[in-house]
Amino acid sequence: MDFKLDARLENDCIVIGSMKLCKLLLVKDSRYPWFVLVPQRAGITEIHQLDREDAISYMIESNAVSRMIEAEFNPDKINIAALGNIVSQLHVHHVARFKNDTAWPDPIWGRGEPNPYNPGDLEELTTKVKTHLSRYLL
Amino acid sequence: MDFKLDARLENDCIVIGSMKLCKLLLVKDSRYPWFVLVPQRAGITEIHQLDREDAISYMIESNAVSRMIEAEFNPDKINIAALGNIVSQLHVHHVARFKNDTAWPDPIWGRGEPNPYNPGDLEELTTKVKTHLSRYLL
Repeated sequence: MDFKLDARLENDCIVIGSMKLCKLLLVKDSRYPWFVLVPQRAGITEIHQLDREDAISYMIESNAVSRMIEAEFNPDKINIAALGNIVSQLHVHHVARFKNDTAWPDPIWGRGEPNPYNPGDLEELTTKVKTHLSRYLL
Repeated sequence: MDFKLDARLENDCIVIGSMKLCKLLLVKDSRYPWFVLVPQRAGITEIHQLDREDAISYMIESNAVSRMIEAEFNPDKINIAALGNIVSQLHVHHVARFKNDTAWPDPIWGRGEPNPYNPGDLEELTTKVKTHLSRYLL
């Protein structure tokens, strides 16, 4: 069975690129710098289902994304979550949170409607992310 | 600086035991089998701040807790999250979720009031968890 990105993730996100294990997505919601890592393995729904090599790749890539978020967005906190109650394909949210964001201090899921990026801001953001993560992106 | 469990976590949880890196807590809320892993390192607020050895320990312990949840509770999904917008001390939720739980499919945080365990159920649950995780608990 080949890996195929879930249709809902494909619809809600922009694909920034692929790392060794994960696809790196950006959620189309300018309220938060909100990234999603999706291990490109078919049929996986939980982190502990990754084999040992993939688990290490996941750890490296998750940490790289967190460091990028810290350096480029200077958030008050990073929220990392593997939920998947609606989309079961394993995907891990990495969200830059700020004390003045609309949901603080609550979690962001299921609150209000996404606020689309304008094209200029989106281009600037993805360029900055790709530059920072260039050694991880294939 | 020595590690000391955050007072709010201490108040909201029962300490099941300590593993090589993490304290394993159970949240005093019988609505969900809800565990929290707290790396016993002072001043750490984000997963990527763990050094390489601790990051591997964290991965092993998190996977062990997830496998325990799967085997002992047979959930529809496991939710894993490092949020920390209120309690900044790094702590990672590991929650067994069920299609018939009170919050499904939404995240559990900030919804309603905790429902305390009765002492018999709590004793049974902690015994089962300790038995399953005996090789990880010191």
